[in-house]
Amino acid sequence: MAVEDNTLTPLLPVPGVRLAAVRAGIKQTQRADLVLMELSETAVTAAVFTRNAFCAAPVLLAKEHLQRSDRKVRYLLINAGNANAGTGVTGLEDASRTTRAVAEIAGCEAESVLPFSTGVIGEALPVDKIEAALPEAYRALDATAWPDAAAGIMTTDTRPKGCSRTFVIDDQEYVITGIAKGAGMVRPNMATMLAYVATDMAVEQTLLQGILDEAIENSFNRITVDGDTSTNDACVLVATGVADAKPLTAEQTPQVEAFRQVVEEICLQLAQSLVRDGEGASKFVTVSVNGGLEERECLDVAYTIAHSPLVKTALFASDPNWGRLLAAIGRSGVNDLDVDLIDLYLNDVLIAAKGARAPHYSEEQGIAAMAAEDITIRVELNRGEHAASVWTTDLSYDYVKINAEYRT
Amino acid sequence: MAVEDNTLTPLLPVPGVRLAAVRAGIKQTQRADLVLMELSETAVTAAVFTRNAFCAAPVLLAKEHLQRSDRKVRYLLINAGNANAGTGVTGLEDASRTTRAVAEIAGCEAESVLPFSTGVIGEALPVDKIEAALPEAYRALDATAWPDAAAGIMTTDTRPKGCSRTFVIDDQEYVITGIAKGAGMVRPNMATMLAYVATDMAVEQTLLQGILDEAIENSFNRITVDGDTSTNDACVLVATGVADAKPLTAEQTPQVEAFRQVVEEICLQLAQSLVRDGEGASKFVTVSVNGGLEERECLDVAYTIAHSPLVKTALFASDPNWGRLLAAIGRSGVNDLDVDLIDLYLNDVLIAAKGARAPHYSEEQGIAAMAAEDITIRVELNRGEHAASVWTTDLSYDYVKINAEYRT
Repeated sequence: MAVEDNTLTPLLPVPGVRLAAVRAGIKQTQRADLVLMELSETAVTAAVFTRNAFCAAPVLLAKEHLQRSDRKVRYLLINAGNANAGTGVTGLEDASRTTRAVAEIAGCEAESVLPFSTGVIGEALPVDKIEAALPEAYRALDATAWPDAAAGIMTTDTRPKGCSRTFVIDDQEYVITGIAKGAGMVRPNMATMLAYVATDMAVEQTLLQGILDEAIENSFNRITVDGDTSTNDACVLVATGVADAKPLTAEQTPQVEAFRQVVEEICLQLAQSLVRDGEGASKFVTVSVNGGLEERECLDVAYTIAHSPLVKTALFASDPNWGRLLAAIGRSGVNDLDVDLIDLYLNDVLIAAKGARAPHYSEEQGIAAMAAEDITIRVELNRGEHAASVWTTDLSYDYVKINAEYRT
Repeated sequence: MAVEDNTLTPLLPVPGVRLAAVRAGIKQTQRADLVLMELSETAVTAAVFTRNAFCAAPVLLAKEHLQRSDRKVRYLLINAGNANAGTGVTGLEDASRTTRAVAEIAGCEAESVLPFSTGVIGEALPVDKIEAALPEAYRALDATAWPDAAAGIMTTDTRPKGCSRTFVIDDQEYVITGIAKGAGMVRPNMATMLAYVATDMAVEQTLLQGILDEAIENSFNRITVDGDTSTNDACVLVATGVADAKPLTAEQTPQVEAFRQVVEEICLQLAQSLVRDGEGASKFVTVSVNGGLEERECLDVAYTIAHSPLVKTALFASDPNWGRLLAAIGRSGVNDLDVDLIDLYLNDVLIAAKGARAPHYSEEQGIAAMAAEDITIRVELNRGEHAASVWTTDLSYDYVKINAEYRT
């Protein structure tokens, strides 16, 4: 089950990036499960990793390689089917072996190769299979293989996720393309969210990292399916620089802002695609909280709603159960919350006004609003100027089924 | 569905308390749904209410009456089937009318009557039905009606919950009896947890409130089914004082400690009975976290595990999915958590040692441990001397079914 997604677009090649997806047979799959991405020598790379204290071996190694190579990254190696997490020292050595294998074939340093794994936790990475498939992957590298790569990094995703666009800054046209995987966010034992975004623009490294950090805060960090955070989450932003003679720097304020906007839009689109493909999802739900004293309290309210199993089961049932929404708002921990100020909307239908059932609200209006696949829950706190939105799904039988039966 | 509960005991009368349960027809039910409890004139009452900012009208009024009557409470009036929550000013007036009706029949002040409601949110309280049933309830008051009262406060509970015991302090024997309702903790629109505990001991009021606060912190505040907090939660502790000439005071340290212990045991047993009757529950799960630098971080880890939908669906599937447990621990937000120190047990089976799969652990051991209805997940942080436990259930198809279909 998944919510329809009309946002997927044809994926444009990005000058300076070549990709390949091959079948390594990591988890008895009949489809490609190993992806190699080659970045031009001019490329600058930014990356963000999971905050989970139990992070996987490839996450630890990728961080180390980023530092040791001074962020001069040439290859990204991504396998699906095995997360190489909960594997201790052996896992680190396994991840290291795969990067050395790439380095040998490609004639580069191992620390300019970043490893990524997604799949089952706690099983040894089948390094031999990966090594055996690498020569074919290297030979197959091609600028047009973005769709293959989007499919090759999938685990339980029901469809590949990617988006692409061109943009113009200072009369120069650039391209930006991103792919992501994750059957919703997040599933620790299919340890889960991976995203790769590349542009041919040239961007100074610290600036690129800052832009990625900010974009993630407003996109991947605003989606939730079940509140769990994977051990393997990673998002990489590459600026190959092929299109420019000089890199963008922080002083070029309007250009930086324009680029930041593009990156954030791409990340948000990818993030929302993950939610639409969320485990057992039958609804795509935007939770918007306005009128807060600060952004933090808007987020607290939004996440409390988005994580409430009672709200999520009501969404699954298309039941406009506003009592559960008010109760979630009430327990969100916001200081001195005056519930008598709060208005609550389902799409454009005012359901509760000043903290109680709205006088003109009828159950039929609520049921009509709930019938759609795309639903917006809007909370007006009416006590300040700040706002925040998060995106989530419902909690369905299929969610329980997928997660209860996963290993059987 | 519910987990077997062998802890329910015959309910002993408490001198100074009389009860009645009658059928008011509040929600087209064929069983009793209105409970009246009469407390002796000597009784001292302590109470704790929901922290949800959207608290129900009866909660607001009960708090006000406690204050206005200087905590001289004579009657508790509890209805099931309607929560009188999200009902605004009308809801407050409705609750007030029911307390005035009791006062008139019983010949006492309205502020010595505390109202409690549990049931559907957002519908007007049928005050007429309650008023009509009150004379019968008053006539039926009886010291032995605890089992009827336990049944009369139920909503979607599958069985009444109560426990009772005698205890001896300074060669004097006392009795303590408690009842509670709540189909698991917590369901905001069957707004939810109510508990009433009474003893014939005499206890000074401030001391009694302190003992209740502490007991709740270690019992009702340690259980969770879905992380939601009701708008109507309330727990009342009554010391009728019928058995004593003088009240217990804070200076009598050993006696206070003995009584505190008894109250905490009763509250914990009631709380665990709620979990065993949790919505869709097929497992009763103790999550114990030891070796923390402080209790707070043990609780953070325990709740992150207890609230993780991925852990809960694995419990439902009896799947010893330790990757999900490690991932939950890792995202619990504990500062400077060294995952390489952590050991993880299912019952007595060591599953993960020093942060990775335990060398001698076999999947068969985990499956055997998971097969039981009662399961303990034990986390050893190995970094300090503090510990904490919480109790929870699994996440089943039935949980989704109950909560998705509730209003249809």
